[in-house]
Amino acid sequence: MINQDPRLARLSLNQKTVNRCSVAEAVQGCTEVGIPAIGLWREPVHEIGVAKTAKLVDDAGLRVSSLCRGGFFTGVEGAERRGAMADNRRALDEAAELGAPCLVLVVGGLPAGSRDLPGARQRVVDALAELAPYAGERGVRLALEPLHPMYCADRAVLSTLGQALEIAEAFPVEQVGVVVDAFHVWWDPELFTQIGRAADRIASFQVCDWLTPLPADVLLGRGMMGDGHIDFRPLRAAVERAGYRGDIEVEIFNADVWAEEPHTVLHTMAERYLGCVCD
Amino acid sequence: MINQDPRLARLSLNQKTVNRCSVAEAVQGCTEVGIPAIGLWREPVHEIGVAKTAKLVDDAGLRVSSLCRGGFFTGVEGAERRGAMADNRRALDEAAELGAPCLVLVVGGLPAGSRDLPGARQRVVDALAELAPYAGERGVRLALEPLHPMYCADRAVLSTLGQALEIAEAFPVEQVGVVVDAFHVWWDPELFTQIGRAADRIASFQVCDWLTPLPADVLLGRGMMGDGHIDFRPLRAAVERAGYRGDIEVEIFNADVWAEEPHTVLHTMAERYLGCVCD
Repeated sequence: MINQDPRLARLSLNQKTVNRCSVAEAVQGCTEVGIPAIGLWREPVHEIGVAKTAKLVDDAGLRVSSLCRGGFFTGVEGAERRGAMADNRRALDEAAELGAPCLVLVVGGLPAGSRDLPGARQRVVDALAELAPYAGERGVRLALEPLHPMYCADRAVLSTLGQALEIAEAFPVEQVGVVVDAFHVWWDPELFTQIGRAADRIASFQVCDWLTPLPADVLLGRGMMGDGHIDFRPLRAAVERAGYRGDIEVEIFNADVWAEEPHTVLHTMAERYLGCVCD
Repeated sequence: MINQDPRLARLSLNQKTVNRCSVAEAVQGCTEVGIPAIGLWREPVHEIGVAKTAKLVDDAGLRVSSLCRGGFFTGVEGAERRGAMADNRRALDEAAELGAPCLVLVVGGLPAGSRDLPGARQRVVDALAELAPYAGERGVRLALEPLHPMYCADRAVLSTLGQALEIAEAFPVEQVGVVVDAFHVWWDPELFTQIGRAADRIASFQVCDWLTPLPADVLLGRGMMGDGHIDFRPLRAAVERAGYRGDIEVEIFNADVWAEEPHTVLHTMAERYLGCVCD
């Protein structure tokens, strides 16, 4: 049953929310439920290839809101870092072919055994300097995602929106933007100030809820909107006041959500989006 | 065996690090290992009473570096909040009687069912306005502890040192200070700037390490210095440049550390302090 509420016009399914679905199944689900956009992940895209994915999405009349993900370039100079940079260029090529406006970047944590946080953060700047022109040539924006500080050591040394903007602002606005992901930034006392500052740097806006207690695997602590502690409406309003008019992605990493029937998840997601995020 | 390294002169055992010890055992352990100060917790203090605790500490020639803890005053107006405020006044009385220079405050999270983060944060300011003069009269400083943002929903809506200072600065410096706890703030891109700003607002400096992966109970993810990802020396140096000359408390919540023989823990703690925190 298609949900025909016109407020769904900006809703996007981040593919991770229906983690066990193929691209074809996720695309079909969006069509059946009335979700007009999709945020793709590289792994399921690679399973069928970029060209076939682009055709599936296009035939279904969906927009691609983002490609997830690049990054993981905080390693020290060497083969591993060179490999990561090459992979990021491939990800930008794929994003361009898929018509994704941005490539979401999870920058990476501290290299194994390292405690040099300033060094790791500097290497994020260095990596962007190398990738930004390449992104610009392909018409794809690098979208720096600040991750919750609990991931600083092992996933992303980029921990706040302010820090992401500080880095992004050194590059042309069409080449480097930022992601506002409610789960990662909702706690930040500077959040509304930094969203105002972000303005047209906002490349992606993602929502999912903060649950307590956190599950044993903190990567899976993201909940359906309404199941946790985040007040989404003021956040959405602030992002809109800042000028963002793009898609709003629902990206949920959660074992229970992944175990549910995907079609049910998509319906719930649309309803919760209307009830908790929209006015 | 007493460790006679003169650099231990500022080391303090936060009692939580030897969680299963009574006050008497913790005090004795400090004496045996050569740790000159102790950060007390109210629960074990209440087991033997404040007067007896004060005498034990005094007879052993130890300093009290802090009393843990007050706070949990983010509830909405009503009996529960009134009870919390009364309990904070009792905690201040106890701190004064124990000769503790400060009462550490964990402010509390969102009230059950509430998503009003700005409201909860405002109630922290309101509670301080009520408690600060009372603290001043007793010569005890309220020490606002920003907790890691992963505790924002359920433990402390105070998430960064900058935010703690913003609140503290509205009060006389001898009445309201801040805690710099490495575990909670190490990830913050603004950390060194805010430590500089903090100057004589720093009421307590605590160290323990950030471990990965986080354990299932994220309250217990605090490790012995050297076992995790934090670079303590630059942090200690910054706190000293800011003017702090008080005790450095080791506060570890960790099931494995708690299971160890307490005397071993104290020796390890002194060694790691010398090896990872001191120059």
